[in-house]
Amino acid sequence: MNPIPLNELDASAAARLLQRREISAEQLVRACLDRIDAREAAVLAWTFVAADSALAHARELDRGPIRGLLHGLPIGVKDLFDSADMPTEYGSPIYAQHQPATDAAAVALCREAGAVILGKTVTTEFATFHAGKTHNPHRLDCTPGGSSSGSAAAVADYMVPLAFGTQTAASVIRPAAFCGVVGYKPSYGWIVRAGIKSLSKSLDTVGAFGRSVADVALFVAALTGDKRLLDIEGASGARIGICRTHEWPRADADTQAIMLQARDKLAHAGALLTDVTLPDLMASMVQVQTDIMAYEAARSLAAERISHSKALSRELSTLLAAGMAISCQRHQENLAAAMRGRQLIDACFDACDVLLAPSAIGEAPTGLNATGDPVFSRMWTLLGLPCIHLPFASGQQGLPLGLQLIGRFGSDHKVLQLANWAHKALLTGPSV
Amino acid sequence: MNPIPLNELDASAAARLLQRREISAEQLVRACLDRIDAREAAVLAWTFVAADSALAHARELDRGPIRGLLHGLPIGVKDLFDSADMPTEYGSPIYAQHQPATDAAAVALCREAGAVILGKTVTTEFATFHAGKTHNPHRLDCTPGGSSSGSAAAVADYMVPLAFGTQTAASVIRPAAFCGVVGYKPSYGWIVRAGIKSLSKSLDTVGAFGRSVADVALFVAALTGDKRLLDIEGASGARIGICRTHEWPRADADTQAIMLQARDKLAHAGALLTDVTLPDLMASMVQVQTDIMAYEAARSLAAERISHSKALSRELSTLLAAGMAISCQRHQENLAAAMRGRQLIDACFDACDVLLAPSAIGEAPTGLNATGDPVFSRMWTLLGLPCIHLPFASGQQGLPLGLQLIGRFGSDHKVLQLANWAHKALLTGPSV
Repeated sequence: MNPIPLNELDASAAARLLQRREISAEQLVRACLDRIDAREAAVLAWTFVAADSALAHARELDRGPIRGLLHGLPIGVKDLFDSADMPTEYGSPIYAQHQPATDAAAVALCREAGAVILGKTVTTEFATFHAGKTHNPHRLDCTPGGSSSGSAAAVADYMVPLAFGTQTAASVIRPAAFCGVVGYKPSYGWIVRAGIKSLSKSLDTVGAFGRSVADVALFVAALTGDKRLLDIEGASGARIGICRTHEWPRADADTQAIMLQARDKLAHAGALLTDVTLPDLMASMVQVQTDIMAYEAARSLAAERISHSKALSRELSTLLAAGMAISCQRHQENLAAAMRGRQLIDACFDACDVLLAPSAIGEAPTGLNATGDPVFSRMWTLLGLPCIHLPFASGQQGLPLGLQLIGRFGSDHKVLQLANWAHKALLTGPSV
Repeated sequence: MNPIPLNELDASAAARLLQRREISAEQLVRACLDRIDAREAAVLAWTFVAADSALAHARELDRGPIRGLLHGLPIGVKDLFDSADMPTEYGSPIYAQHQPATDAAAVALCREAGAVILGKTVTTEFATFHAGKTHNPHRLDCTPGGSSSGSAAAVADYMVPLAFGTQTAASVIRPAAFCGVVGYKPSYGWIVRAGIKSLSKSLDTVGAFGRSVADVALFVAALTGDKRLLDIEGASGARIGICRTHEWPRADADTQAIMLQARDKLAHAGALLTDVTLPDLMASMVQVQTDIMAYEAARSLAAERISHSKALSRELSTLLAAGMAISCQRHQENLAAAMRGRQLIDACFDACDVLLAPSAIGEAPTGLNATGDPVFSRMWTLLGLPCIHLPFASGQQGLPLGLQLIGRFGSDHKVLQLANWAHKALLTGPSV
C-alpha cells in the first residue's frame, strides 16, 4: 500500500502507478471524491462535481488499454471552459444551468489522453474581478485568489491533482501563490482556447495547476503533444536574473524577504545570479495591460453588456464601462506598445535564462469579496511570456508564499527544466 | 418613390434614407424578404430566415429613435456566428438545430447599432472546404466560393445589403470575387471574434460583404466604433504597387488580362503605379498558412474530431489528419516564419500605399462540390493585412471578376479610402 493517501499523490507519481496498473483509476477518483466530500462544504472549490460519470469513466479506463499520458488522472476544469456533459456557468448568473453542446477543445484533448473530468471549478465572474464562493483552504477567511479560484484551491486541498486555469491578468499565478501550489501559464497561444469563454483575445492564456513542476509539465505535454516537456530533469547552473520589476515598491515585507531568501538558496545550489533592471518602457506595461483587457472585455462580452446588463456585478459593469471609454485608436496604440515591449523584453533573455520575480504583493489577503491585486502578473501576461509560480515559503500569517520564474517567449521547455531544478533548490536549500 | 427597388439599394444609400425616415425599416426588410421568397429556392443562400422576428424588430425600430449607424439595415450573419434566437449549425450535421445561449459579440454590436438580423447564411463545414448548398446567383451551376458562401451570394443577389463573413484562408475575398460583390477582410484582430466558432486562432478574421466600399466601411465603422471609416471620400493619386505575387503563374488568362486593364484604368485616373516584387521568403507563405491552418484546426475542432469523427466530411477529416501530423515544434517554426513575413512585408508599404493583386485564379468554377482555390489569399491572411476585393469586370464565361487591394497592417482607413477611389476608377475608366 502507498504510505500517503492516493488523493495526496502528485499527478506524476499517480500517473506512473496508473500506467503500471499498480493503482486503479477508480481508486484514485474515489480518493479524490472522498476528499471533496470531507472538505467541499468548507472550501467551496467546485460548481459541479461529476461523481457518477467520473467513476464510470474511471472503471471504463481500468478495463481498457492505457489511453495516453493522463490515463486515469482526475482533472478539475475551470468553469470558464465548455463541457458537453456538465453545466458551464462562466461564474455568471446569466448562464445559470447553461449546458454547452461541446467540450472546449482543451477538455476534449484531456479526455483523449485518458483524463477523468472530475468536475467544474469556481471561476470569478467571466474570469474578471467579482469573486466566486471559494475559500482559501489554508485559512478559510482568506481569498484563494482569482480568477481560477476553485482550481487552485482544489489542487491545494488535495481534492484533485491537476486543474485547468486561465490567465488574462494574474488568474493562474496569483491563486497559485495564495493557495501554495505550482501554477504554470505557458507562452501565449500555446494551448488551444476554442470553447473557453473569451475575455480578452490578446491576453487570455490557458494554464495549469499542480503540486509540482513535473505535474504541470505532464499536463501540458498531454495537451500540446510536446513530448520534450516529459524530460525536465538534469538542469543545473541556471543563469537567473533577479527582477524586482517597476512594481517592486508594492511588494510587502514578506515578499521582499523571500526574494533575498531565494537568491541565497539558488546561489547556494549553483545558479549564476544577476540583477536585472527592466527598460523604462516596461513601467508602462501594467497600464497598457489594464487598458487592453478593459477594451477587449467590453467587446468580447458585448452580448452580456447589452442584453443582460442588470445581471452583471458592479465590478464588471465598471470594467466594461472603462473599456467602452477607450477609443479604437488608443487601443491600437496600446497594442503597438505591447509589441514594442515584447521586442524589448526579448533582449533581457540574452544574459539570463529566466527571470525571478514576485508573484503577488504578499500572502492571501483576508476577506472573500476580492481576489487580491494582479499587479505583479499584468506585465508578464501582456508580454506573452511563460511564467511558473513556485511555492516554497510562508509569511507572517502562516500562509503560502513563493515567486515566479519567467522565460523568453516560446522557451517553455527550458523554463520548466529550470523551474524543476530551482523548485528543489528553493524547497531544500539552507533556511536563512 | 425610389427609382430602384429598395432591396437593391446600397447599404449606405439605404442608411441615409432610414436615418431621414424617408423609408421605413419595415419597408426595407419586406423588400429583402420578398427577394428571398422569389430567389431562395434557386440560390439557397440561407440556413435560416428570421422573417417574423426581423419584421417585428423593424417595426420596433420604426417606432423608436434612431439607434445607431446601422439603424434599420438588414444584415445576413454567416452561420459560423452564434445567435441567441436562431439555430447555429456551423455548416455541420453535428450541430443540427443547435441553439446557442448568446449572440456572438459582433452580432450583439450590430443589434446595438440598430441592425436587423435577417437570418443566418450558409457556411461551408466549420468554414473549411466541404461545400454548403449555395449556388452562384450569376450562374446556378457554379460555386459561389466559400466559406462565406451564403453571405456573398445573398448580397450579390440583392437579398440583403450587408452580410458577415470570416476569412481563415480566402473565405471573404474568394466568394466576393466569384459573386461580384465588395468583400473586406480588415486587419487581423480588428473585429471581435467572441462567439464565432474557432477554426484557426492565428488566422480567423471577421469580414464583411457589401455592394460598395462605402457599405463595408459603414458596417465596420459600426462594429469597431472607428468613426474615421465614415470619411473615405477625397483620396486621389494613390501609390499603387502592382503585385503579381509568387503565385502569378496560377492566375488564368482572364485574371492576367484584368491586371493589365486595372493598371491602365488606375494610371488614367492618376495613380502612381510601380511593379512590386515580393521578397523570396514570401514564396513560402502559402505553405506556412496551409500548415498553420491545418495544425490549429485539428486542435480547435478537437471535440468534433474525437467525439464525432463519423459526422465529419472526408475533406475535413483529411485536413484534421494533416494537422495532427504536424509537430508542435514545426508549428512553432511556422509561427516564427509568419512573424518574419509580417516584418518583411511591412517594408513593401514604404514605397506604395496599397498593393493590387489577384483575388482568385479566375471566374467561379463550374460545380457545387468545391468552392475554388484559396491560393491568392492564403498569404495575405497569414500576414494579417487588410484586404478588399473590388469587382469591376467579367470573364470569358460572363461571370464576375475583380482584384484585391492590400494595405499595411492597421492601415484600414487608408485602404478603404484608396479602395473607394480605385473602385470608381476601375468601374468608370476607359475600357481597354
